[in-house]
Amino acid sequence: MRYLSAPRPPTPAALISTAALHQIRRIVGTDRVLTEREDLIAYAYDGTPLLHKLPDAVAMPRSADEVAALVRLANDAGFKIVARGAGSGLSGGSIPTDDCLVLLMTPWNRIVEIDRENLTAWVEPGVVTAHLHAAVEAEGLFYPPDPGSMAVCTLGGNVAENAGGLRGLKYGVTRNYILGLELVTPTGEWMRVGGKVMKDVAGYDLKSLLIGSEGTLGVFTKILVKLLPKPETSRTMLAAFGKLSDSAEAVSAIIAAHIVPSMLEFLDHTTLNCVEDYAKLGLPRAAEAILLIEVDGRASAVEEDMAKVAELCRKHGATAVTVAASNAEAIQLKTARRSAFSALARLRPTTILEDATVPRSELPRMIEFIQRTAKTRDVLIGNFGHAGDGNLHPTCLTDERDKAEIHRAETAFGDIFNEAIRLGGTITGEHGTGLAKRPFLEAQVGPPGIALMRAVKATLDPNDVLNPGKVLLPKVRCEGQARKS
Amino acid sequence: MRYLSAPRPPTPAALISTAALHQIRRIVGTDRVLTEREDLIAYAYDGTPLLHKLPDAVAMPRSADEVAALVRLANDAGFKIVARGAGSGLSGGSIPTDDCLVLLMTPWNRIVEIDRENLTAWVEPGVVTAHLHAAVEAEGLFYPPDPGSMAVCTLGGNVAENAGGLRGLKYGVTRNYILGLELVTPTGEWMRVGGKVMKDVAGYDLKSLLIGSEGTLGVFTKILVKLLPKPETSRTMLAAFGKLSDSAEAVSAIIAAHIVPSMLEFLDHTTLNCVEDYAKLGLPRAAEAILLIEVDGRASAVEEDMAKVAELCRKHGATAVTVAASNAEAIQLKTARRSAFSALARLRPTTILEDATVPRSELPRMIEFIQRTAKTRDVLIGNFGHAGDGNLHPTCLTDERDKAEIHRAETAFGDIFNEAIRLGGTITGEHGTGLAKRPFLEAQVGPPGIALMRAVKATLDPNDVLNPGKVLLPKVRCEGQARKS
Repeated sequence: MRYLSAPRPPTPAALISTAALHQIRRIVGTDRVLTEREDLIAYAYDGTPLLHKLPDAVAMPRSADEVAALVRLANDAGFKIVARGAGSGLSGGSIPTDDCLVLLMTPWNRIVEIDRENLTAWVEPGVVTAHLHAAVEAEGLFYPPDPGSMAVCTLGGNVAENAGGLRGLKYGVTRNYILGLELVTPTGEWMRVGGKVMKDVAGYDLKSLLIGSEGTLGVFTKILVKLLPKPETSRTMLAAFGKLSDSAEAVSAIIAAHIVPSMLEFLDHTTLNCVEDYAKLGLPRAAEAILLIEVDGRASAVEEDMAKVAELCRKHGATAVTVAASNAEAIQLKTARRSAFSALARLRPTTILEDATVPRSELPRMIEFIQRTAKTRDVLIGNFGHAGDGNLHPTCLTDERDKAEIHRAETAFGDIFNEAIRLGGTITGEHGTGLAKRPFLEAQVGPPGIALMRAVKATLDPNDVLNPGKVLLPKVRCEGQARKS
Repeated sequence: MRYLSAPRPPTPAALISTAALHQIRRIVGTDRVLTEREDLIAYAYDGTPLLHKLPDAVAMPRSADEVAALVRLANDAGFKIVARGAGSGLSGGSIPTDDCLVLLMTPWNRIVEIDRENLTAWVEPGVVTAHLHAAVEAEGLFYPPDPGSMAVCTLGGNVAENAGGLRGLKYGVTRNYILGLELVTPTGEWMRVGGKVMKDVAGYDLKSLLIGSEGTLGVFTKILVKLLPKPETSRTMLAAFGKLSDSAEAVSAIIAAHIVPSMLEFLDHTTLNCVEDYAKLGLPRAAEAILLIEVDGRASAVEEDMAKVAELCRKHGATAVTVAASNAEAIQLKTARRSAFSALARLRPTTILEDATVPRSELPRMIEFIQRTAKTRDVLIGNFGHAGDGNLHPTCLTDERDKAEIHRAETAFGDIFNEAIRLGGTITGEHGTGLAKRPFLEAQVGPPGIALMRAVKATLDPNDVLNPGKVLLPKVRCEGQARKS
C-alpha cells in the first residue's frame, strides 16, 4: 500500500527553459518572478506532511489576462502550472510538480462586491475565508463554509478543494455557496460560468465540474458566492460521555429527533486531553468522548432545540452537559474544537490528519474501527471530527524520521480508507484527493469512474498543463504493474 | 432567430435495422418492444409545444443490465437512445431523435429504501415526484424539490433536467438533494457515483456533471436523494397589489428583511384572472399582481415572519393581505399558483411556457420588459413564477396553426432570452436547454463554454448515442452559416 510516500510521476524534471522564463518575466514583470532557491522554499510545501518539492519558479500575476498569457505560454513551452493560495491544503493539492511554475494568488485578496439585494459577493481567489466571514457578517449576512483552516485558507483553494467545515451538517459545503466563477481554462482562455441567479440549467454544469477539481481544470480569477441572512442567534453546548458508543448514539438520537444543529462535533479522549493541555479550557479530562453542539436560528427555536438536545444527550449517557452561558464561553468551547489539530500537532513531530467519511449511521462502527486499527498497527491516533455528517479526522501523531513508524501509519490509514469505502463512505470528505489519496481513488469510484475522470482531464487539458498528476495517478505505461500493492 | 421551430439534425433518418430490432427484442423480450405506429405516437411528444417526432421503437427494459445491453447495442448498431420518464419536460429534452429507440422508464417506480437514520432514500427513476413527497412525509421527512409538474413528473427526469420548483428560494433545486446515482454510461457501462455521505470530494464530481445533463451523458437506473426533517409548520398568505412594481418592491423588501420564505410566487393580472376563471378561488380580479407567500419552520418563528411579511407587503402598497386561516385554505391558495399553467392553457390552443431567470434585483426590470415585449410583438403573454429567485414563467398563449403569430411569439421569446442574458440571468432557470433553447445557449455561455460542453459530450459519448442533438446544436459543417440568424 503506497500512501503519502506515493511515487512521483516517472519522468525526470526538465527545468523550465531560459527562454520560457524570459517570457514569464515579460508577462508579469521581472519583480514578480521568483527563481532563487531561498525564495522558492516557502512554496515547496502545503499543509500535507511528508510531501514537498521545490518549484522551478514562482510568478505573481496581477490580472486574468496575465494568468491567461502564462497558461498559454505553458502550453506552448511545455512547462506546468500549479496555482496556489495559502497552501493550507491537506492532500498535497498545491505541492509543486515537475517543471512547474507556481502562480501565487494570495495577493488577489479583494472583496470586490457585497450585493445586499441579491445576497451575493464577488471575491478574488486570494481572500482569506475568515475575512469574508467578517466582512459579510458586518452587513448582517452569512457565508457558512468554515473549514478548520479558515483563519488562513483562501477562497480559491476552498473552491478548488470544495472545502467543508464545521457547519456542513446544517449548511452544506463550499459547493453549495458558489454561484459563479471566472477562470482561465487549461488552454489559456478566459471564461465565466454561472452568475447571480439561484437557478440556472443552461447547458452542462461546468461550474459544478470545476468546483473540487483541485486546480487541474482551471485557474480561478474571481468567485461569486451566495450569502444567507445571518442567523439570529446561536447557543453552544458541551456534552461529556464515559463511553464512546454513547456519544455516537446521542448523535443518532439528535438527528432522529429531527434537529439539525449547526455544529455537531466529536472529540475523543486523546484529542480532548491534548486540547486541554494546550488551551486549558477546563474540559472533562476523564471523558471518553465529548460532543460540541451548536444550534442556531431564531431565538425561540434555538432555546427549544437546545433543551431537547441536552435531554437527548443525558438520556444517552452523557455524564455532564454544559451550555455556554455567554458568547465568550461559546467561543471558548468552539475554540476547543478548532484548536484540535494544533493541539494534537504538539505531541509528536509529524501530524497526519485524515478525513475518511462514512454515512452517519456507520459512525460508531468507524470510530471503533479506527481505535482498533491504531492498536493493531501500533500507532497513536487521535480522533475528532464532524460527527453530524460522518466526517472524521483520525489524526496520526508520528515522526517522519522513523521510517518504520511512518510505514505503520500508512498501513493504518490504508486500513481506514478501505473500511470507509466498505461502509459506503469516502476516502476524503473535505480535503481532496491531491497526491495523498490518489492510490485509493479507484477502489472508491471504480474503473469506469477513473476512466471518465481521465477522459475529462485529457479533453479539457490536452497538454496536461494545470496541476498535473494531482487527483489521478499518472498512467503507468505497463498497465497492471504498479496498480495494486 | 430560430426557436421552437429550430432545425433538426441535418442527416435524414435511417431507421433502426431489422437485425438491431431483433437484438433489442432478445434483450428485453418481445412483449416489451413497441414498433407499431399507434403505439409509438404517445412517445412522440413531451410537454413542449410544437415539437414532436415518432421514435423508431420503444423498449421497456426491466434491469440496469438490460439498459446497459441496449446502450452497448446502440453503440455497435449505430442507433440512438432517448430515455424517457413521464415526458412532462418543457424544453424538448425527451422528444425522440432520428434513428431512435425510446427507453421507457416509468415502470421503474419503486421507492427502494427510506433510510431514517441517514435521512436518505433510494428511488427508481420512474417514481413520480409527488409519490416520493407523500412517502417521506408519512415518515416525518421532507423532499423539498417540487417542480410544477410534480403530480406527474418522475425523478429521473427531475435529475436529468435539474428540476426546480416553488420551494427553490429557501430549499434549492433537485441538484441540492441528489447524493448518489446509479447509471449506465453512454458506452454501456454500469456505474455508481456518490453515496450516503454528506461530504465527498474524491476525484472529479461526475455526479454533479450528470445532474442536469438532460439524458445526454447517462441513463439513470437508481437515484439516492437526501431528505430533511419535515418543517414543523407553515403559513400561507396572499397579497394583492394595484401596481406590478409594488409587488416587485415587496419581494425585495422581504429578502432585505432577511426572511427567506419557502414560497414567494408571483402571478400577473392576466394569469390570476385565468386562474380565477378556472378554479373560482375568489382571487382579487382587479389586482395587477398577486404574491403568494409561504413561510415554514418552527411555529413560533413562522408566526413572527408572517407578521413581518404582511407588514412589508402593506408598506409596499399591497391593497389586501389575506393569511390562510386553515390548512385547507392554504392548499387552496397554493392550488391557485399550481394551476396557473393549466389555467392559462385553456385560453388558446397552444401554450408556450418559458423560464427566463434573472438576478432577483432585476425582477422589476424583467417583468416590465416582458409586458412591453408582448405589446411590441403583438402576442398575449401571461406572466407568473418564482419571484423569490428571479425565475419567471412568461407564458405565451397562441395557436400553432397561425404561423405568423407563432413567428411573433418566437421573436418575443428571443427578445426575452436576450434581455435575461443582458441582465446577468439565464435562458433557462429550471426547464433545461433541450431542443428549444439550443440556439440561445452560446449567447449565454460564450464560445469557450460551448467548446467545453462539446468536448465533454464527445469524450463521454464518442458515438453520440444518448439523446443526441439535445443541449448543443448539431455542428454545422460550414461554420458561421446557420449560427446567428
